Amino acid sequence: MAHITLPVDVPGIRGPLNFRPDAAKHLLGLAETILRQPASLEPGERETIAAWTSSLNGCRFCTKSHAAAARAWLGPERSVALDRLLEHEDASGFSPKLQALLALSKALQSCVLGVTPEHIERARAAGASDLDIHDTVLITAAFCMYNRYVEGLGTREAPESDYEPMGRRLRDQGYAPPA
Amino acid sequence: MAHITLPVDVPGIRGPLNFRPDAAKHLLGLAETILRQPASLEPGERETIAAWTSSLNGCRFCTKSHAAAARAWLGPERSVALDRLLEHEDASGFSPKLQALLALSKALQSCVLGVTPEHIERARAAGASDLDIHDTVLITAAFCMYNRYVEGLGTREAPESDYEPMGRRLRDQGYAPPA
Repeated sequence: MAHITLPVDVPGIRGPLNFRPDAAKHLLGLAETILRQPASLEPGERETIAAWTSSLNGCRFCTKSHAAAARAWLGPERSVALDRLLEHEDASGFSPKLQALLALSKALQSCVLGVTPEHIERARAAGASDLDIHDTVLITAAFCMYNRYVEGLGTREAPESDYEPMGRRLRDQGYAPPA
Repeated sequence: MAHITLPVDVPGIRGPLNFRPDAAKHLLGLAETILRQPASLEPGERETIAAWTSSLNGCRFCTKSHAAAARAWLGPERSVALDRLLEHEDASGFSPKLQALLALSKALQSCVLGVTPEHIERARAAGASDLDIHDTVLITAAFCMYNRYVEGLGTREAPESDYEPMGRRLRDQGYAPPA
């Protein structure tokens, strides 16, 4: 049971989002913008950063839902790299640029002051643009929020079989709040 | 110098906000909603939680700007309690309810999985409502994001004399993005 009485009994973030719709509008709008709207990183790469941050933070609902969204974007072959990342912290299946951005993301997830000039230099040397770096920082930061929102209110996980269709839905329909 | 080239050379979060206005709209809308719109906790109490989280995270720009906003709401007498909180981690100048919520906030700031049933029970015993607990969780979570956005991009601090007027401006005009 969640720590507060939520208006609908659903797993993960949906309960809190229904508790305060005025905040939910912005939380969902931000996710839609940083994960799905056109940017220099592909949506599948951005969902990978979201799942990675959530996994390092120990938030299982967010890890599984965003890993499913990443898999839906990446397709079965590239999903092997994602599984290796989440199971063994082994990013070697991804491009050198994404490897550098995932290292930057981990440094920032673990500590607000964790990003060093070396993280930035490594990312740039691997071809990262200002927008790639910005979006990696903002996605990591945002999932340090979403993860705490989900876990801090004690919400429950979804049944295992829910995540794959959830990932396809997030890819196809996104995070836009109801109009 | 910031880690990426920002469109305007201003301290703190304003540079990143100008870099990606489509995300900024939601980041500012969220801050306006959780800190300033009517809720069960006063704006001064909510800004106190924002400054507290930022201080524990080591983000000086956010600590100083939100402490200034909190002071603007709280007035000079109650600001003494805020100063004790930020300088000595001593929350005893606040109500038992806010003390319990600040303890919950610290647990969540330090660890995504840090909130225990005991934090919730202590807050409830001190009179905290579901909305008080929800908002404490979301404000703490959100500042774990804003702090990382500011620090992860290597933005600079504002001159010391800027914070007091900034605090009054945040109280009076808020966080609404340009229409």
